[in-house]
Amino acid sequence: MTISEDAALRILKRTLPRAYSAASGRKVRVGIGDDAALLSHGQLSPSRQELVWTVDACEEDTHFLWQWMTPEDVAHKAFHAALSDIPAMGAAPVAALCQLTLGPRVSAAWLSKFAEQQRECALTTSTPLVGGNITLGESTRVITTVLGSVDARRVLLRSGAKPKDEVWLIGQIGVAGAGLRLLQARPTRSRGRGSQVACLEAFRRPRALVSEGKKLGPLAHACMDVSDGLARDAGQLAEASGVRVVLEQAGVEAILSESLKDLARSQGWDALHLALQGGEDYALLATGPKEKRPRFAQVIGRVEQAGRGSPVGAFLSSGTSLRALAGGFVHRPRK
Amino acid sequence: MTISEDAALRILKRTLPRAYSAASGRKVRVGIGDDAALLSHGQLSPSRQELVWTVDACEEDTHFLWQWMTPEDVAHKAFHAALSDIPAMGAAPVAALCQLTLGPRVSAAWLSKFAEQQRECALTTSTPLVGGNITLGESTRVITTVLGSVDARRVLLRSGAKPKDEVWLIGQIGVAGAGLRLLQARPTRSRGRGSQVACLEAFRRPRALVSEGKKLGPLAHACMDVSDGLARDAGQLAEASGVRVVLEQAGVEAILSESLKDLARSQGWDALHLALQGGEDYALLATGPKEKRPRFAQVIGRVEQAGRGSPVGAFLSSGTSLRALAGGFVHRPRK
Repeated sequence: MTISEDAALRILKRTLPRAYSAASGRKVRVGIGDDAALLSHGQLSPSRQELVWTVDACEEDTHFLWQWMTPEDVAHKAFHAALSDIPAMGAAPVAALCQLTLGPRVSAAWLSKFAEQQRECALTTSTPLVGGNITLGESTRVITTVLGSVDARRVLLRSGAKPKDEVWLIGQIGVAGAGLRLLQARPTRSRGRGSQVACLEAFRRPRALVSEGKKLGPLAHACMDVSDGLARDAGQLAEASGVRVVLEQAGVEAILSESLKDLARSQGWDALHLALQGGEDYALLATGPKEKRPRFAQVIGRVEQAGRGSPVGAFLSSGTSLRALAGGFVHRPRK
Repeated sequence: MTISEDAALRILKRTLPRAYSAASGRKVRVGIGDDAALLSHGQLSPSRQELVWTVDACEEDTHFLWQWMTPEDVAHKAFHAALSDIPAMGAAPVAALCQLTLGPRVSAAWLSKFAEQQRECALTTSTPLVGGNITLGESTRVITTVLGSVDARRVLLRSGAKPKDEVWLIGQIGVAGAGLRLLQARPTRSRGRGSQVACLEAFRRPRALVSEGKKLGPLAHACMDVSDGLARDAGQLAEASGVRVVLEQAGVEAILSESLKDLARSQGWDALHLALQGGEDYALLATGPKEKRPRFAQVIGRVEQAGRGSPVGAFLSSGTSLRALAGGFVHRPRK
């Protein structure tokens, strides 16, 4: 009776093809299937600027439990998680709208703190929150939709990766997943101690890499944000581009943060596994030519041509071994 | 501990003022407080076209019960309810995005029917659905965000009503509220019989008045969609414009549909009360000068200047009596 997220997405992609969007007489450059929608609107964009527009959910019991997060945490996470798709396209944010469903535990004090933090997020990211809608419900849910604009020649799609590109990572991975594990083991709003602090913060207060994404526009060939785990997201980029994304295990291990490694050591966790499979990082995964690599990008692999005996996909390389990456992260806080 | 929708809105309005939107260096003409956000984006709109952007929720247990609606009904209602804010601004739709949370009762068959109906809605309204996001959750929820564009000189705000304007209603009111009462009394997906049919259909399949809204742009002074009941919405228009909106009881009664009157008669309901207090009509309430009234607009009252002893607000006039209108509709299917 029930349906998986992937099966649902397949149905939607099948039922809502690009064809009918084009039939509307307006040019939808990217609809379903990338980080955000990309619209060419004749009258609105004569100077080759295009709109980038995304929507994302941050829902109690799916993305977080009430006892894990202060109202400021919820506001911050919802805002930055949605915003993250804008730099993932090489775009700059224009504005955001918020659909807010308030569960029975929301008090006026809670909402005030929430709203103040959303204002803070809007100010620090130059993304004015220009409206939204409020509903009362059984649980608290924040749906954020964000518009951005981008020079049409510099937009970064998942499908742009080219053989011989380097694979770049911008930001941290695995840290938020470690924070999530801590919260699943012991629900708390405490900020933690030692190496826990950075991990809990990465989960509760991810940061959309707005300026990095904008700078990547003229440098990279492809980009996406890492929200479902590096393994799964690298696979999606590979499939969209029709290439092989080969991650170097040593390269990935070299960029893991000290906090993640310390915490993994003390808890008996596998830091590499967390980096590959942990979700909600909101780092950027990009590919581009070596000579254009910006200083903030860390090299974790390379793009190779697919062909006979070399299928499209994401792989992890270690010495002479090469294994296909699979799996990924599904939002289910209780598991 | 819990908070009302109005109290929540007040907090948000207080915390998220227009000032900081303006501080971003982009011009936000209308943020929180009207039907949709209105953006002037220098590079995107040199020809005085502006973006109109809205978000709306259609959630199980808040806006509908599972046993009331086919998947096609849910798809249609969610899409048109969100879209309705675009003609309410005198704008034309550009595109829509959908955040879909799937509850445990959603099957692949359900979702296929849902998606096909959304495609149908997109095609018939020329509003391509260009993407979205999927989440799994405890109940099914559809959040739709819609972009539109409008000539900056023809945008219709709630605040534009002028003394001596006529008050126009476009579309039906009260019918959806009657449909809701039927469903609350007896949950069913049946299409009904006799006068029930039109009322159930009005609740399950409201129609955003896309072409009417666009035509109103150069004719009307103010416009909004009627979703929380005519009484409440007329009051909001009056307050935003700083005027008195005086509805003629005879004028309102004259436009009630035969289906509504028949059903009210057979059920012992007050049709006028349903027209004033019933929600989810998605009709358009506009004001404008008599000489510009389009043929599809029905006159139901007049706009008067407020002043000493004549407070701002919405009123119902009948013969020599005049009473202030209050109340309105809050989405709570179980009550």
